Amino acid sequence: MQHTWRCAIRVADLGEFGIIARIVGRLPQFPAVLLGPGDDAAVLRAPDGRVVVTTDLLLEGRHFRRDWSSAYDIGRKAAAQNLADVVAMGADPTAIFVGLGLPGDLPTAWLDGLTDGFGDECALVGASVAGGDISSSEQIVLGVTALGDLGGRAPVTRSGARPGQVVAVAGRLGHAAAGLALLLAGREELPYPELVDAHRRPQPPYGCGPGAAVLGATAMADVSDGLLQDVGHIAKASGVRVELEPQDLPVPEPLAAAAAELGVDPLRWVLTGGDDHALVAVFPADVRLPPEWRVIGRVVEGEGVQVRGHDEPQGGWDHFRE
Amino acid sequence: MQHTWRCAIRVADLGEFGIIARIVGRLPQFPAVLLGPGDDAAVLRAPDGRVVVTTDLLLEGRHFRRDWSSAYDIGRKAAAQNLADVVAMGADPTAIFVGLGLPGDLPTAWLDGLTDGFGDECALVGASVAGGDISSSEQIVLGVTALGDLGGRAPVTRSGARPGQVVAVAGRLGHAAAGLALLLAGREELPYPELVDAHRRPQPPYGCGPGAAVLGATAMADVSDGLLQDVGHIAKASGVRVELEPQDLPVPEPLAAAAAELGVDPLRWVLTGGDDHALVAVFPADVRLPPEWRVIGRVVEGEGVQVRGHDEPQGGWDHFRE
Repeated sequence: MQHTWRCAIRVADLGEFGIIARIVGRLPQFPAVLLGPGDDAAVLRAPDGRVVVTTDLLLEGRHFRRDWSSAYDIGRKAAAQNLADVVAMGADPTAIFVGLGLPGDLPTAWLDGLTDGFGDECALVGASVAGGDISSSEQIVLGVTALGDLGGRAPVTRSGARPGQVVAVAGRLGHAAAGLALLLAGREELPYPELVDAHRRPQPPYGCGPGAAVLGATAMADVSDGLLQDVGHIAKASGVRVELEPQDLPVPEPLAAAAAELGVDPLRWVLTGGDDHALVAVFPADVRLPPEWRVIGRVVEGEGVQVRGHDEPQGGWDHFRE
Repeated sequence: MQHTWRCAIRVADLGEFGIIARIVGRLPQFPAVLLGPGDDAAVLRAPDGRVVVTTDLLLEGRHFRRDWSSAYDIGRKAAAQNLADVVAMGADPTAIFVGLGLPGDLPTAWLDGLTDGFGDECALVGASVAGGDISSSEQIVLGVTALGDLGGRAPVTRSGARPGQVVAVAGRLGHAAAGLALLLAGREELPYPELVDAHRRPQPPYGCGPGAAVLGATAMADVSDGLLQDVGHIAKASGVRVELEPQDLPVPEPLAAAAAELGVDPLRWVLTGGDDHALVAVFPADVRLPPEWRVIGRVVEGEGVQVRGHDEPQGGWDHFRE
């Protein structure tokens, strides 16, 4: 009989340089990387003459849990949330850099999964994991920085919304929040695997970011704090008011069904759930949008965000109006 | 009588957006920053068409201690070690980004000190703190990313050393290690404040990095792991051997005196101490170096690093020869 138990190799057995070699060996470098891992710093192409930069800190227990997500999914999600910030500026991601705090007793297989998650998510957009840093840490810490190139386009900031324009969304809303609610309620046995998967691994509509810039978007944000809050950031930065049409907000079947099981309003997930990393953008009223985009409201004079016909329904989102 | 005790304001009282506003309000933005904090990502100038990038993760208790260093010094040091990596490529730093994990009960005065430390160290080189991320964390976590511009110069990597060239160092060696040894021995009362200060706040010779590129340096590294180890990285990456002349290594008076007090060999601090972020570079033999640089050895055929006349003296550094 085969003895199937094996002593897991731990990252501490590899040492710092062994860990780095193991990570680097799993990561291809795309042509934008002129000098990759192994020197004091990396050198990237920045053909536009400008570079877009965003950074996030992800802490075990606070931003992810090893018992809820695989190493691979944690890597994908950590990369995704930074790449989404880059495309939300209308830029094409070029590379990410990862500061890794790892417990010494972490199995190397877990590190490999994390590395592959980072690499595979970046490969979706042709970006490289071009460098990083390793430290010993009691809990896992991920410091992720993503860079992008604007390709000659103006950055699409949060401050360019003007009255008369339309607000549109690309990507999923509320799915990750619904998945998290199922996990928190211990109801992940319910037949909505796409919702729990959405919590574990977002699917930002990457191409829609640079695409929106080409289509003439004048403001854009990635939905990381929830639609109302992120649209609120655009409204505040632009000095305008946004009116959202509730009947235009997407509430697909699994979201409605899961909400019914948990006895909640699915619109709440759609309006306040983050972590799906949809893109919300503002376009001139006469824009012709491809099917990835769905118009959900319009820009008017004033301030704040209103969901038409829902003045303070479940008493939930009034504090998001700023 | 004045009641001098005041209830400290904690960062948790400010909330995420309040913390960000407080930090951003203390940080000037230099012209390389086209779009600073407050959007999904920042936009920086990259006039060279390439960008140099490095990242480090710093964890409380492992990389710094609040009882040994002030918030201001921790910010300066965290910025310095990343800026030193940028100049070690021959680039001019343009900006840093900081992912901050903060305990909710941290006094806001501590956060202000940290912010000012980051800002002041960056200002030394004309760089901005151009963005970041805030998270709640039990212990302080700093994820720092620094960017730089090569100004049309080739990056000075670790792999360009050739036999016949000379090895030179700019900046201090062993001072931070001596300061740490004094702290660990509980001997900070000894009259060498510059050593303890060196541990708390490195003084990288920033201008010498781009300067070395202009002088024709063919390889360079910042001394963060200790001179022998970092020169070893250059030797390995270049496929050469480096011979260091012990009598040329700088052992200034406070280093020698502190070593005598603690009964250790100061050369050990000079050879193996990190954290001063000196620069070590390799130049053609006929180079005329300004006084900031001190020739300490030469490049020969072979592999590894040797300190001439010290074959395995205190049994300390043989394992650094790779």
